Amino acid sequence: MAHRSCLAGFIIDCEGDDLAGAADFWTAALGDRERREQQGPYVVLDDEAGLHVEVQRVTHPSRVHLDIATDDITAEVRRLERLGARQVAAVRTWVVMEAPTGHRFCVVEAEGPAFAAHARTWDEPA
Amino acid sequence: MAHRSCLAGFIIDCEGDDLAGAADFWTAALGDRERREQQGPYVVLDDEAGLHVEVQRVTHPSRVHLDIATDDITAEVRRLERLGARQVAAVRTWVVMEAPTGHRFCVVEAEGPAFAAHARTWDEPA
Repeated sequence: MAHRSCLAGFIIDCEGDDLAGAADFWTAALGDRERREQQGPYVVLDDEAGLHVEVQRVTHPSRVHLDIATDDITAEVRRLERLGARQVAAVRTWVVMEAPTGHRFCVVEAEGPAFAAHARTWDEPA
Repeated sequence: MAHRSCLAGFIIDCEGDDLAGAADFWTAALGDRERREQQGPYVVLDDEAGLHVEVQRVTHPSRVHLDIATDDITAEVRRLERLGARQVAAVRTWVVMEAPTGHRFCVVEAEGPAFAAHARTWDEPA
């Protein structure tokens, strides 16, 4: 079975309690964007040409992490493992992975028209 | 004088000597992208809908950092300082800053048609 994936966007993980302040800074810094209401630990900024940009309150040190969207999380995790990444945790509907370069990133469920337009198709190896 | 700025893209900073290996992983992970020849510590991947994506060899711990492009670096640094960021270093043609959320990011010279299409105009405060 083939599956599809693409870069979904990036999440600005902000350590500390002041999510509104963090979202204020990044909204203004990145061009005075539209933003949606806070939902739990997340504030979604408007898409950058189809890329999702989000500010998240976290308890680990601040960082930026990438999200890879897919229509088959199990197959995409396997593909990324073959490239050298490792699975760190399964969280609700997504999987946290670590790249061989040490970066944490997430494999998330595909949504929206950008996925249909940009996703690459991967055949399972024989 | 007004000036302009916008999010230029993101740089995947990879600690260690194996820039080719790091670029191999991220090229494949993010959708088997085109990539340009290595130039110094950089490998540029193809643009994501106008956003610059780059893999960089660094000596600090791996992270992802954002670049903000502008047609007036001094004015943009001042704007970001008013938002709460601080200047960390001036490097060749760009300035490294730290957000109030602790993220390092760079203010870089504008280039390419994406800037003209996406940049926001900022008036100097009175």
